[in-house]
Amino acid sequence: MSLLIRDPFVGGTPTSIYIEDGRIAALGEERPADETIEAAGLHAFPSLKNGHTHAAMTLLRGYGDDLPLMEWLEKKIWPAEAHLTEEDVYHGTRLALLEMIRSGTTYLCDMYWHREGVCRAVEEMGVKGHVASVFIDLGDREKAREQRDRIAARLSDRDRHGPRVRMALGPHAIYTVSEESLEWIADLARKEDLLVHIHLSETRGEVEECRRRHGLSPARYLEKVGLVGPNLIAAHGVWLDAGERELLAAAGATVVTNPTSNLKLAVGGIFPYREAREAGLRVVLGTDGAGTNNNLDLIEEMKIAALVQKHRAEDPTCLPAAEALALATTEASEAFRLGPGGIEVGAAADLMLVDLSGPATTPVHDPVSNLVYAASGRDVHTTICDGEVLMRDRVVRVADEGEILAEAARAARALLARSGGAG
Amino acid sequence: MSLLIRDPFVGGTPTSIYIEDGRIAALGEERPADETIEAAGLHAFPSLKNGHTHAAMTLLRGYGDDLPLMEWLEKKIWPAEAHLTEEDVYHGTRLALLEMIRSGTTYLCDMYWHREGVCRAVEEMGVKGHVASVFIDLGDREKAREQRDRIAARLSDRDRHGPRVRMALGPHAIYTVSEESLEWIADLARKEDLLVHIHLSETRGEVEECRRRHGLSPARYLEKVGLVGPNLIAAHGVWLDAGERELLAAAGATVVTNPTSNLKLAVGGIFPYREAREAGLRVVLGTDGAGTNNNLDLIEEMKIAALVQKHRAEDPTCLPAAEALALATTEASEAFRLGPGGIEVGAAADLMLVDLSGPATTPVHDPVSNLVYAASGRDVHTTICDGEVLMRDRVVRVADEGEILAEAARAARALLARSGGAG
Repeated sequence: MSLLIRDPFVGGTPTSIYIEDGRIAALGEERPADETIEAAGLHAFPSLKNGHTHAAMTLLRGYGDDLPLMEWLEKKIWPAEAHLTEEDVYHGTRLALLEMIRSGTTYLCDMYWHREGVCRAVEEMGVKGHVASVFIDLGDREKAREQRDRIAARLSDRDRHGPRVRMALGPHAIYTVSEESLEWIADLARKEDLLVHIHLSETRGEVEECRRRHGLSPARYLEKVGLVGPNLIAAHGVWLDAGERELLAAAGATVVTNPTSNLKLAVGGIFPYREAREAGLRVVLGTDGAGTNNNLDLIEEMKIAALVQKHRAEDPTCLPAAEALALATTEASEAFRLGPGGIEVGAAADLMLVDLSGPATTPVHDPVSNLVYAASGRDVHTTICDGEVLMRDRVVRVADEGEILAEAARAARALLARSGGAG
Repeated sequence: MSLLIRDPFVGGTPTSIYIEDGRIAALGEERPADETIEAAGLHAFPSLKNGHTHAAMTLLRGYGDDLPLMEWLEKKIWPAEAHLTEEDVYHGTRLALLEMIRSGTTYLCDMYWHREGVCRAVEEMGVKGHVASVFIDLGDREKAREQRDRIAARLSDRDRHGPRVRMALGPHAIYTVSEESLEWIADLARKEDLLVHIHLSETRGEVEECRRRHGLSPARYLEKVGLVGPNLIAAHGVWLDAGERELLAAAGATVVTNPTSNLKLAVGGIFPYREAREAGLRVVLGTDGAGTNNNLDLIEEMKIAALVQKHRAEDPTCLPAAEALALATTEASEAFRLGPGGIEVGAAADLMLVDLSGPATTPVHDPVSNLVYAASGRDVHTTICDGEVLMRDRVVRVADEGEILAEAARAARALLARSGGAG
C-alpha cells in the first residue's frame, strides 16, 4: 500500500511526501502510488500524540463542572464510574478517538477502567496507543492480588489487538496503590519492558502526604519502589522540586504536562517547564480526560501550554510555538517509542494536513505560529496513522461517525440514569 | 423584516424565537415570518461581544511571536504600523470581522489607526461596534492639537456609517497621552456622552511609572484627569489594587479582561477577577488584537478566562461557565449600551446558533459547559445581528469570504514588503 501526498507545505515549502508500508519513503519526489492526496495549499505536520488521557471520560464531559474537587469526585464522577461497563468504555473511547482523529491526533497514552473496551476501540479506529488499566488497591491485599493476577494473565496475549495497541501498566498514584504493589509493578515493568503510566505530584496535598508517610518527595518515593527509569510516564509533575527534576531527567523518564486540567482543577501551581527542560527532563503534552478539559484538542492544548509557561516565567520567549509543537510530536514519539517523530524518510507516516486558509489563520506569516496560536483542531483536514488515511478532507474513513455519536450519547444518558445522575 | 428561528434549544429547552424589526418580539410562538431558520437540535445563545480589540492587527497575526516585548514592538509591530494605510486597515478589519462572525461575535470595541477604514468595514459587515482612533501625543502639543481637531471635526457626522457604528474616544494609555489631552478627552466624553476606551494597568511598569510621575496609582490618576465614570472602558486592569477596584466600581466603569493577551505577553499578573466582582466592578471579555492572541475567538477566550481565574483563586468554582458566558454577553451589553443582552422579548436580536452535535461537544449534559469548555468558534452555525442574518449554516452572507481572505493576505504581504519585514 502506497500513498502520495502531493505538494503540501512542509516547513513552509511545497514538498511531496511518498509513503510506503506505513513509513515515509521519500520527500520531494512524486512516485506513482495507490492513493494520491492533492495537498497544495495545505500544511503538513507530524500528527499529534496525547500523552495522558482517560479517553472514555468523554461520557462525563461537562457533568458537574465548576464544583469543588471532592464534591465533583464524590457526587458525580465516582458514582458514575462505579456503574461503567466495558461497553460504555468502548463507546466513550470511540467518541474520544473520533474527536482525536478530527483534531489531528493519532496516538494516546490512556489509563482507565475496562481496558478491553479501550483496546477494541483503539484497534477499530486505527490510531496507536499505550493502554493501561487503572491499578488501585488502597492497601487492600485482596484487591491487589486480583489486579496483579489480571495483569499477569494479560501478558501472554498482549499483542492480540494488533501492532498499534500496546500494553502499559497504570498504577493510579502513589497514594492509591500500596508500596508492595508499586514494587511488583516496577519489577514487572523492568522484566517485560513495559511503560508505567502514573499520576505524579499533581497536587500539593499529594506531596505533603508523601513526605509525611514516607519521609520522601513523590519522585524519591517512586525511586525507592523502583519505578524511576526510562519506562516511567509521569502525568502532571506540577510540584516536582529541583532534585526530583534532576532524578527523573537522569533516569530518562518523561513528564506529561496537562495545563488545562491543572488550571481547571485549580491545583494551584503550574508545571515548572523551563526548569524541567534545563535539567534535561523530557516533557510531552496531554489533555487529561474530558472531565477536566473538556475537549481533547491538542492544538488548543499546545496554545494553553505556551501561554501558561510564558506567564509563569514572566517571559514571552518561554515555550515558543515550535517547541509546543515538539512536545506533542517529536518529544512524544521518543517517549512513547514510536520511532523518529518528524517528517523525515524512515519515520512512521503519522501525519496531519491542516487547512490554514480560513479567517482565523490568514495571513500565514509563520505556519507553526498559526497552528499553535490561531488554529483549532477543527482546521485539521486529513489525518494519517502508519500510512493509513483515517480522515481525508474532513471525512472520517475508519468509522461511522453518526453511529459513534449516537451510541456514545445513548451510553452517557443510560450511565447517568443507572448511577442516579440528573443527566 | 421578520425572522423565525424554529425550535432551537434556549437554556436547554426547544423554544422558537420570533424576531421583528431587529428585536426579539416573541419567545415560544411560531409566527409566520419573511425568513425561517429550522434550528431543531441547535443551541441558541446571545451572540458574543468583544470588549477590546485592534481588529486590523489580523494583518500582523503570527508576525514575530515569542519575542521579548520591546523587540517585538520595535522591530516588528511599530515599523509595520508606520506603513499602514486606510486601505490596509479596511482589509485587516474585514478579515477580523469575518472571523468574528464565523465565531459568533456581533460587536467589537475597537481602538486602532485609520478609523475611517475600520468604520467602513464594520458598516459593510453588519456587526455593531464602538470605533475609536488611537490617541497618542507623547506630550507633543502639535500632535495633540492635530488629533483633537480631527476628533472635533468628526463629531458632527459621527453617525454617518449607520446606526451600528458608534464613535468612541481612544486615548491609548496614561503613559502615551499628556495630562492636558486626557483632560480634554474627559471633558468631551462627558459633554457628548461618548465611551472612552483606554489601556489601563496592563503592566507592572506602567503602575510604577505612574506612581513615580504622578504620585498616584493609574486609576487614581484617571480620576484626577476626570476620566473615571460610567463611560470608562478600561482594558486589562491586571494590577488594579483594592482601592482602584472600588473607585471604578463606584463610578460604574467597566474593565475588559484579555487573558490570552496577558499570558502571551507575560505581563506577570492575572486580572483580580474575583475581587473585582466582589467590589461590584463590571467586567467584560476581550481578545485584544490578533498580534497577541492570535485569533479572535471569544469562545476560546471564555475558556481561557475561566481557567486562569480558577488557577489564580486556587478554586475550581471561580468563574463558572455561565458567568464566563455572561462576561461576553449580558455584562458586555450593559457596558456597551446595547440594551438587554439575554434572549428575552424586547432585546436586540443579537444571537448565535451553535452546533453542539460534533464529537468534541457530545454528549450534552450541560450546553453552557460544552459551549465554554469544549466548543470552538468553528462550531457556530448561524450569526445574527439586529435581526439580520450575517451567517447561516456556516455560509457568510454579508461578504464574499474568498475576496476578503485574498485581499487581506495581499495587503499583509505588501505591508511587510513596504516596511522591510521578511513576510
